[in-house]
Amino acid sequence: MTAAPIPHPPTLPRHIVEAAVRMAFAEDLGQAGDITSQATIGPNATAVARINARESGVICGLDCALAAFSAIGDGLSVETFLRDGDRVEAGTAVLQVSGNARLVLAAERTALNFMTHLSGIATLTRRFADAVSHTPAHICCTRKTTPGLRALEKYAVRCGGGHNHRYGLDDAILIKDNHIAVAGSVTEAVAAARTFAGHLVAIEVEVDTLTQLAEALDAGAEAVLLDNMSNEVLREAVALTAGRAKLEASGNVTLERVASIAESGVDYISTSRITMAAIPLDLGLDIAIKG
Amino acid sequence: MTAAPIPHPPTLPRHIVEAAVRMAFAEDLGQAGDITSQATIGPNATAVARINARESGVICGLDCALAAFSAIGDGLSVETFLRDGDRVEAGTAVLQVSGNARLVLAAERTALNFMTHLSGIATLTRRFADAVSHTPAHICCTRKTTPGLRALEKYAVRCGGGHNHRYGLDDAILIKDNHIAVAGSVTEAVAAARTFAGHLVAIEVEVDTLTQLAEALDAGAEAVLLDNMSNEVLREAVALTAGRAKLEASGNVTLERVASIAESGVDYISTSRITMAAIPLDLGLDIAIKG
Amino acid sequence: MTAAPIPHPPTLPRHIVEAAVRMAFAEDLGQAGDITSQATIGPNATAVARINARESGVICGLDCALAAFSAIGDGLSVETFLRDGDRVEAGTAVLQVSGNARLVLAAERTALNFMTHLSGIATLTRRFADAVSHTPAHICCTRKTTPGLRALEKYAVRCGGGHNHRYGLDDAILIKDNHIAVAGSVTEAVAAARTFAGHLVAIEVEVDTLTQLAEALDAGAEAVLLDNMSNEVLREAVALTAGRAKLEASGNVTLERVASIAESGVDYISTSRITMAAIPLDLGLDIAIKG
Amino acid sequence: MTAAPIPHPPTLPRHIVEAAVRMAFAEDLGQAGDITSQATIGPNATAVARINARESGVICGLDCALAAFSAIGDGLSVETFLRDGDRVEAGTAVLQVSGNARLVLAAERTALNFMTHLSGIATLTRRFADAVSHTPAHICCTRKTTPGLRALEKYAVRCGGGHNHRYGLDDAILIKDNHIAVAGSVTEAVAAARTFAGHLVAIEVEVDTLTQLAEALDAGAEAVLLDNMSNEVLREAVALTAGRAKLEASGNVTLERVASIAESGVDYISTSRITMAAIPLDLGLDIAIKG
Amino acid sequence: MTAAPIPHPPTLPRHIVEAAVRMAFAEDLGQAGDITSQATIGPNATAVARINARESGVICGLDCALAAFSAIGDGLSVETFLRDGDRVEAGTAVLQVSGNARLVLAAERTALNFMTHLSGIATLTRRFADAVSHTPAHICCTRKTTPGLRALEKYAVRCGGGHNHRYGLDDAILIKDNHIAVAGSVTEAVAAARTFAGHLVAIEVEVDTLTQLAEALDAGAEAVLLDNMSNEVLREAVALTAGRAKLEASGNVTLERVASIAESGVDYISTSRITMAAIPLDLGLDIAIKG
Amino acid sequence: MTAAPIPHPPTLPRHIVEAAVRMAFAEDLGQAGDITSQATIGPNATAVARINARESGVICGLDCALAAFSAIGDGLSVETFLRDGDRVEAGTAVLQVSGNARLVLAAERTALNFMTHLSGIATLTRRFADAVSHTPAHICCTRKTTPGLRALEKYAVRCGGGHNHRYGLDDAILIKDNHIAVAGSVTEAVAAARTFAGHLVAIEVEVDTLTQLAEALDAGAEAVLLDNMSNEVLREAVALTAGRAKLEASGNVTLERVASIAESGVDYISTSRITMAAIPLDLGLDIAIKG
Repeated sequence: MTAAPIPHPPTLPRHIVEAAVRMAFAEDLGQAGDITSQATIGPNATAVARINARESGVICGLDCALAAFSAIGDGLSVETFLRDGDRVEAGTAVLQVSGNARLVLAAERTALNFMTHLSGIATLTRRFADAVSHTPAHICCTRKTTPGLRALEKYAVRCGGGHNHRYGLDDAILIKDNHIAVAGSVTEAVAAARTFAGHLVAIEVEVDTLTQLAEALDAGAEAVLLDNMSNEVLREAVALTAGRAKLEASGNVTLERVASIAESGVDYISTSRITMAAIPLDLGLDIAIKG
Repeated sequence: MTAAPIPHPPTLPRHIVEAAVRMAFAEDLGQAGDITSQATIGPNATAVARINARESGVICGLDCALAAFSAIGDGLSVETFLRDGDRVEAGTAVLQVSGNARLVLAAERTALNFMTHLSGIATLTRRFADAVSHTPAHICCTRKTTPGLRALEKYAVRCGGGHNHRYGLDDAILIKDNHIAVAGSVTEAVAAARTFAGHLVAIEVEVDTLTQLAEALDAGAEAVLLDNMSNEVLREAVALTAGRAKLEASGNVTLERVASIAESGVDYISTSRITMAAIPLDLGLDIAIKG
Repeated sequence: MTAAPIPHPPTLPRHIVEAAVRMAFAEDLGQAGDITSQATIGPNATAVARINARESGVICGLDCALAAFSAIGDGLSVETFLRDGDRVEAGTAVLQVSGNARLVLAAERTALNFMTHLSGIATLTRRFADAVSHTPAHICCTRKTTPGLRALEKYAVRCGGGHNHRYGLDDAILIKDNHIAVAGSVTEAVAAARTFAGHLVAIEVEVDTLTQLAEALDAGAEAVLLDNMSNEVLREAVALTAGRAKLEASGNVTLERVASIAESGVDYISTSRITMAAIPLDLGLDIAIKG
Repeated sequence: MTAAPIPHPPTLPRHIVEAAVRMAFAEDLGQAGDITSQATIGPNATAVARINARESGVICGLDCALAAFSAIGDGLSVETFLRDGDRVEAGTAVLQVSGNARLVLAAERTALNFMTHLSGIATLTRRFADAVSHTPAHICCTRKTTPGLRALEKYAVRCGGGHNHRYGLDDAILIKDNHIAVAGSVTEAVAAARTFAGHLVAIEVEVDTLTQLAEALDAGAEAVLLDNMSNEVLREAVALTAGRAKLEASGNVTLERVASIAESGVDYISTSRITMAAIPLDLGLDIAIKG
Repeated sequence: MTAAPIPHPPTLPRHIVEAAVRMAFAEDLGQAGDITSQATIGPNATAVARINARESGVICGLDCALAAFSAIGDGLSVETFLRDGDRVEAGTAVLQVSGNARLVLAAERTALNFMTHLSGIATLTRRFADAVSHTPAHICCTRKTTPGLRALEKYAVRCGGGHNHRYGLDDAILIKDNHIAVAGSVTEAVAAARTFAGHLVAIEVEVDTLTQLAEALDAGAEAVLLDNMSNEVLREAVALTAGRAKLEASGNVTLERVASIAESGVDYISTSRITMAAIPLDLGLDIAIKG
Repeated sequence: MTAAPIPHPPTLPRHIVEAAVRMAFAEDLGQAGDITSQATIGPNATAVARINARESGVICGLDCALAAFSAIGDGLSVETFLRDGDRVEAGTAVLQVSGNARLVLAAERTALNFMTHLSGIATLTRRFADAVSHTPAHICCTRKTTPGLRALEKYAVRCGGGHNHRYGLDDAILIKDNHIAVAGSVTEAVAAARTFAGHLVAIEVEVDTLTQLAEALDAGAEAVLLDNMSNEVLREAVALTAGRAKLEASGNVTLERVASIAESGVDYISTSRITMAAIPLDLGLDIAIKG
């Protein structure tokens, strides 16, 4: 069994990045801007600064940093030493920015808040992905993301070697117990979904038992989410499915346990930990030269 | 020595809550909305559902949940059983929502993503605040917050018994090493800040040593941030200051160590852990009755 | 062969409707509002008005009209006589609005512009759908939609009995000739897509020939778009595919020809005509009572 | 009788174009962007592509295409071969774009949706305008436009040789039957309008009969809309008016009939067909070179 | 000679009012809201407060105040004692608001800033209008307005008995010296404008001399702006025009001189003083009852 | 006694400037743009124009003018001859703009409306500041600002040599009579505020009498606003305070009286006159060269 081939690196849509940076500046700069720098630094002072990694991890969010140093004002120039998804070692420089000192300092925290948050997600995802790299299983995220940052966080998951689940309620069908209860049965719910959805909308069913799994497979679900099953039951599910649908394991997915889940033969392992419980990667901005 | 008196509960500005919910719906509902519910649940089905705590903690974010169940469409009614800042026990209901089933399910994840995130922050802040409650020290947050959610996260810190640092670069002056280096000295930097700022803008200086502390006090700083000092040095700083300025300890603030920091006599202990490294509180929505 | 079962009616997300109405009011009311009504009608005059169909068709856009009569000001009351997707006969009333006369007239054109445009799409889609109702084929739209109105137009397609293709470039993979050329071959392109996409993203390949179709099927595409093929070749494609993938016919889809395309056995027939070339349904607002 | 002289070409305000493109990208790129191109094309691949006309017509919307290829990301370069309002022959190139292949393909549909829609309007308007070019009559549009696109569609009308009616309810007074009924009479309605409006607001009255026309002229209306009159009655209206006001014919304006309407001597002929019933001009993007 | 009849009161579009209040709250409430009230007033305290006039004038901006007390949160009730355009005496109550005390105080300044600014404009306009009320001349504003508040300020001018000039560059043609210089002559400029503009766009020419006036009249301008002329020359201009066009006097329009300008027989007198140099009307909010 | 040292010039956040210009263009350009220039000036005509001062004063708002000439379209170049805060003499050029003539004229009024309004504020503030320059007192503004322009107006105050009060209700605590009445006493209100606010939030109390002043000082307020006191009482207040808090005089602050207020020894003198009652500085744009 071998790990999945490496996909092309993804591209963040520019309008997403710019909207995120605009939102962050609005809350950090307010109406008066960086009054400390205005008070203590002349309007023509210059600086060269670097964002350095204080610990090792996977870098993510460079586009946000670039957008921040661009939107803060004219004339800053930025050089990047890494690309999103690259591993960074503690003590290594990630990027260098030079130009007006007030502007560099005014954008510092915004750039760092994006990069530390997204790099934290990419780094933790990478640890999960590495833990299952001896299997074909993929790590994927959920819709449990920080409000307003879903696009960025799902991008960070990819940069860490993970895959994405639905981006929203609108782009795939995931039938859960509540839907099944209303529809009457797994069979009826899948049939209703098939009638409703176009040919490019995937249908997944969340099941708790092997009996439900069997029903979902018979109903023609393209994917089945196996919720909170033991490794043993997961293995039975894989055997029962025999390739008829993609299988996704979810629930109680820890770094310790994830390899054993992957070894059950499921195709995907989803967890909200990588988006909502990642610790920010420690990055800081250091002034190298003052002018 | 006694703990600080309890302040009035804060109020979140409504425009902040509504903007946050709008942003979250845009990313979760997209252009087509909750297609799973539309596919499997009739347009007139009703439901009664509860948001229940799956673990104990401090609740925060009820206004976001209320706004989500209001903005999703007409006719949902919500009853809340707790207020922001209240402790909740595992297995307890936080709120009940009833009305159109499609609407309840379409708003579920948005309401939960806000509540779990903010309650996680309030819960962790509460743990830090409780750890220092035998002293007059206050726990406070920093500007290391999730981009776009600063107002909500700083509110959550208050709900957990913490205090707020600056909301942005615009509402207080915090002079750091870079500013000092450009201005020439702590004395000159504080003087420049005093000249620049109006009478309602506080001036704080970040220092690494007791020598710098002495200079900051002489320069008339209202507050001094003691960066990365040992408990012993912190105690010396408190003695040296003798009430002339507010003292804020920062750096390496863990739950294990925070009590000993507080016992040094500093007024504030700031940490980004409570905003950027809090684990979401486990809350879930359960359908109680289907109509 | 029987027609497809009728799916549940879809629900338009409220934020989509409100944003669309806001945009329309901004351009029709400007800064001064309806100056004709202000000039000629007293501020307290009232009216009862009806939106009537001047020709027969399928109604769509009631939510937009309701939102317009709500957002224009306080106090208008609206009663609807039909639901989106219902057939309306010429001379029949669709809704009645009553209240302040200035407000009714100020919102009139905005309400009508949405309803005539969307009802026109629903009506034309219904004609295409009816033309293939003796087969299991579905009519579906494309991404050739009016900028800014995609969500509404795709909803109108559903109200007319059609199905939706991708909502955007982000929610499904459709590999076209340019992608194939860069990737090297259909096989390589599908493999790259499989590696990149999560388990809930469908992969469709656009092909011009039966040879390409065979390659796409071998590569494991979930759907194949048969571009500009004659009915005879479409029949061969259906036979060749033998149920291994969903087949979508596209190109030169007219009302005259669509039945014969459907009879070839393809699953979907996509056309931009239903969104970009539909004639607005003739609806008008008539004042019934003036107060 | 000779055709009207050719006015200067109009300029679209940049903020209108940018807002329209932003809106279109939001719906087409979503949160993940063009996943097909990301999946199948490397991040550094380049391309040279052309937008070609597949049929003849009048080009409109180049500013939207330019804005789309600019906003999608840095580094695309665009060369245009025509200007808005120019006739294009089938098989002719309209513009060439070169640069990063992912960006070119991500912006393709947005650029085309604007250009095909607006060129369709310009082309149909041109046909109407040419049909009356032996008379001094002007073709003009109405407020029956696609919600959100009024500014662009009215610009397209001009590019096709037409004139614009009101942009909204706020910039001119058009007194219709409902206003007349409330005000008491045409005379009273025009008097009220004159009292209300400043000296730069034109007043037009819609009339159904020659008796109403006479009253409107006596009341001093600057323009009169002759609604649904036969050519014979239109000729009588022209004679009756004798140059005292501008006359606008409206209602049942087809390409077949428009010349005979114009020959009646009216100054303007308004129709919603040119904005709401135009078929998109067939344009497509072809990759010329892949890098 | 008698004063002009009184037009109907205008209506402010709701979207304009709501956008203005949203903008004002964003800058006054920020991310934390009214921290003074939160700090000193319990969350359930109630109050009854009145906005009282501290000096006499003309009231304007009630819709903004109502929108502010509505948008700040749920449950405030407001009673108004006057309507926009009414005269108010010093010491008189304008409106009463009751409900949650924190909300009343949080919205106070926003409501007052709108009302004092707009009432100041209405009051000054009223003084100019009264000064010419023995003539048929109208006072009107210009495009010299406070950025972002044009719609509100032009509405305030109407509430003070004035008329509106153009709302923007888009809704009427005003040919100035620069345009004339480029076009070649007044005659050519008016001809170009006539060719360009539709039948509902008025054309005005700005002239400095009677010679230019004569040329403008011959060219068929609907209105002529007489710039910076003495009363004597204005009288000659009126005689020369003999009703062929509307005449607008502008330049050096003071309260002292305006009556004599009006007596020259011009139709309109425009001045930026009423919008950009009005002193706010002194209004204050007083708490009547605390609960 | 000597005047305060001169602080560094402030920097306006770019997002504030761009949002303000966008808002102004929306209201001045509408959907059709500058139709006069489009009608009378060819699309390729060029011009060189200067903004000249028609009277002497203090310049402010150059960033807004630069942003306007940049956002209106591509290709204008601007040279500035002064910086914000500089004095300008009547007849002096402030900036020169050159490029496409339509674009220059379309942006003219927007650029001027910002510059005349903000320069008027800076000029009046300068007069107040100069009047107290023989004392250490500072002139400062209030929250009585034009809705939507607070950030710009507070910046203009600084450019005129003034200081800023609170930017909003969120960044400092100002306890007024209503708060005191609810809280019970000055002492209790200050205590509540201290409990609520973090260490970087200043607390000011508004008092009417020396008795209240004494209580505020004892309660530990950092600043006290002395409302509507005579110069004699102000002097007593200064003596009573003896440096324990910053003192701010407010109420009836005229240019005539301000020096005598300053001589009482208060630290700050606040007045809404400088923001809400400043007359715009007379600036105009003159075309120098037409191309």
